[in-house]
Amino acid sequence: MRVLITAGGTSERIDDVRAITNFSTGRLGSLVADAYSQLADVDVTLISAKRSLKPSNPAIRIIEVESVQELIMEVTNQLEQTSFDIVVHSMAVSDYYLTGTASQEALISRLGKNKSVLEALNQAFDPISSEPSKLSSQTETMYFQLQQTPKVISLIKQLQPGACLVGFKLLVDISEKHLVKVAKELMAKNDCDFVLANDKTRISGDEHLGYLINRQGEFTTYTSKQAIAQGIIEQTMKGRTT
Amino acid sequence: MRVLITAGGTSERIDDVRAITNFSTGRLGSLVADAYSQLADVDVTLISAKRSLKPSNPAIRIIEVESVQELIMEVTNQLEQTSFDIVVHSMAVSDYYLTGTASQEALISRLGKNKSVLEALNQAFDPISSEPSKLSSQTETMYFQLQQTPKVISLIKQLQPGACLVGFKLLVDISEKHLVKVAKELMAKNDCDFVLANDKTRISGDEHLGYLINRQGEFTTYTSKQAIAQGIIEQTMKGRTT
Repeated sequence: MRVLITAGGTSERIDDVRAITNFSTGRLGSLVADAYSQLADVDVTLISAKRSLKPSNPAIRIIEVESVQELIMEVTNQLEQTSFDIVVHSMAVSDYYLTGTASQEALISRLGKNKSVLEALNQAFDPISSEPSKLSSQTETMYFQLQQTPKVISLIKQLQPGACLVGFKLLVDISEKHLVKVAKELMAKNDCDFVLANDKTRISGDEHLGYLINRQGEFTTYTSKQAIAQGIIEQTMKGRTT
Repeated sequence: MRVLITAGGTSERIDDVRAITNFSTGRLGSLVADAYSQLADVDVTLISAKRSLKPSNPAIRIIEVESVQELIMEVTNQLEQTSFDIVVHSMAVSDYYLTGTASQEALISRLGKNKSVLEALNQAFDPISSEPSKLSSQTETMYFQLQQTPKVISLIKQLQPGACLVGFKLLVDISEKHLVKVAKELMAKNDCDFVLANDKTRISGDEHLGYLINRQGEFTTYTSKQAIAQGIIEQTMKGRTT
């Protein structure tokens, strides 16, 4: 049996010394990877952010990525080359990547041209360089322009419709009812078999309130990272023999 | 004798799950802290980024910070309360912090009002919330507005004119001549006694090309983090007895 797990937070490059990062430590994903790897005849591949925590079992194959672009490439590679029974997509993926920067001074001069404001605004940004670079810090006010990244989770069932997919939804400071509603929307949109819904304000070290929701809309509540990892394994392994 | 060291990279909050971070690992700063702490009668205080590497000597007092605002508070506290003989400011400090965000849709509607474009633009951003929050990812194009942060290094000699100050300058892919020139400007502007000048493209693990420049404009070249740490200690300790 083969399991693919993504964990940690992606990081979108601004220049050679700065990035926009997602805070995820990758701890829950690495616990999930370790727990699957202890089952007999289960091969685990983990796509992990460079700076995130790693599982302890050396039998787990680890692929490191930084940006959403690298993540998409590796997820696609894996799903095209190998047939996975279960995919747990716990990585915190940047919603945006940086496309341009402009100083206030540059914006003033560029927006002065005779174009519609928005068109002028969008043309007023300098593209992000892939060459070694560091943004100048000479201007007092700086503007960043960001574009939405493609949704990695939508790729998974497109490439492997037969895999059991566990999606993750993290929101901040909302009611259980609203969280479950949003998780169900993620499930429907991306054809997930399970969604682990959690709220940042209810996570602190190993204490971690999580709702694992199945296709029937039923959910089980867990209160620690270890319990969430075990719950994901029990529910995704139901009826399987390894 | 008392030494204050700053190390690691600051991180400017976007919302509860994202930040703009500086890549610094804090490794050079923690080597410097360890090296000073091995001298007799030297007390070392390290102000370190939360996610950065820590020194091995448990006698070093460690204060953790995340944002530039927290760094300023702690540096000010330390320098007001304690007299330091040497201050090594190696922390990679964010040049900008985020002041507002706007979706393209919000900008279109807000810029449509009858104001001058730049005034409208600056009023078109929603302020960053200090409440628990996560930016919505519903818009395709997003804009960030950032303001320059105060220069932490300029505080040090203002608060303790008698301390020996080591500043750091990191640039990317420039000539040795230009790097030394920029380092001398930093020295003059902030009344540094030494500046360690380095180029991101010449740093790879322990290999680390650094020029330690003194007030006379003379510089010594080092090629590893360990050698830079030892060089800083030798040069700042010259003529001192502990």
